[in-house]
Amino acid sequence: MDFADFENLVATQRAVRKFDDRPVDDSDIEKVLKAATRAPNARNLQPWRFVVIRERETKGALGAIFDGLGQQMYPSGGPDRQAWADVPVLIAVCAEDAFGGGVGGATALAASVYPAVQNLLLAAHALGLGTVLTTRWKQREAEVRPILGLPENVIPFAIIPMGWPAEKLGRNRRKPVREVTFRERFDNPW
Amino acid sequence: MDFADFENLVATQRAVRKFDDRPVDDSDIEKVLKAATRAPNARNLQPWRFVVIRERETKGALGAIFDGLGQQMYPSGGPDRQAWADVPVLIAVCAEDAFGGGVGGATALAASVYPAVQNLLLAAHALGLGTVLTTRWKQREAEVRPILGLPENVIPFAIIPMGWPAEKLGRNRRKPVREVTFRERFDNPW
Repeated sequence: MDFADFENLVATQRAVRKFDDRPVDDSDIEKVLKAATRAPNARNLQPWRFVVIRERETKGALGAIFDGLGQQMYPSGGPDRQAWADVPVLIAVCAEDAFGGGVGGATALAASVYPAVQNLLLAAHALGLGTVLTTRWKQREAEVRPILGLPENVIPFAIIPMGWPAEKLGRNRRKPVREVTFRERFDNPW
Repeated sequence: MDFADFENLVATQRAVRKFDDRPVDDSDIEKVLKAATRAPNARNLQPWRFVVIRERETKGALGAIFDGLGQQMYPSGGPDRQAWADVPVLIAVCAEDAFGGGVGGATALAASVYPAVQNLLLAAHALGLGTVLTTRWKQREAEVRPILGLPENVIPFAIIPMGWPAEKLGRNRRKPVREVTFRERFDNPW
């Protein structure tokens, strides 16, 4: 695989919050989930679990939680976006609690789920699908869990609206590497 | 970018724990870090910070912590690997505590760092470099922090040994998507 192609893929990954009416086929969902499951994970225990949501009522219930928190975070309005009830698909990325309690287990679990999330988002982007990674609803996880029907040992990590983008977005904007990189120790800039 | 190329990239990403003697140039490190900084992150605050470690003494000090925990986890020996002192480069991926305390802030931070880690690992793989994502040392974070010279508001999330692979590894092995995917609710298999 050509490095320049990968560089271009990540440089054009954007948060897409508005989708058009074209349906998202199961076959495309399976493709992005397969890419997700290729991610690195501790001891190859593959703790990821995916709940694919198309039912309007479920999407609306999750959207109401997301919107409620948004009004607290952005009193004057956050990024413009489609209501979740109208988004073609929501994918909830969860994980079985595979590594036990304590900071070691919690870190291993997060480090075994979010790389899969990023694979999912990049695979969707490579197919032309738009996505946005959300975690804000985590503050109201207790309300989210029964909507998804999660058993006690399954933890939700991300909810990802997905669809065909309603608008074309340019490259993302980031600080230069030298501003965030250090040699040997944190007090020694690159 | 071709989806098949991306699929092949993620399907051949493996944990590489043995490296040959070829040096890793700064220019390659800058390439993989630039790809890392393209990752999605909450509110585009870009909390990631990278410490690139080449000094043998520092690599050995971190390796001693990693090895000590390994002996507890794998009394009969874990995966065979090179001593960290002999690995060409360690990259510590850290983050400024940008989103405040509580479960909301902690989740936003992890979800803003591990996707960058995965971009880093995939970029390295696209260049032919080998890496392995480690978090085990998190159980002894208090000893790791002064080695990296981290200020109080900077949290370490991953330490990544990196170099040119000493052996060629095949595709990774994962469960089929249908075994880890559900429709609408967790009690309804795909």
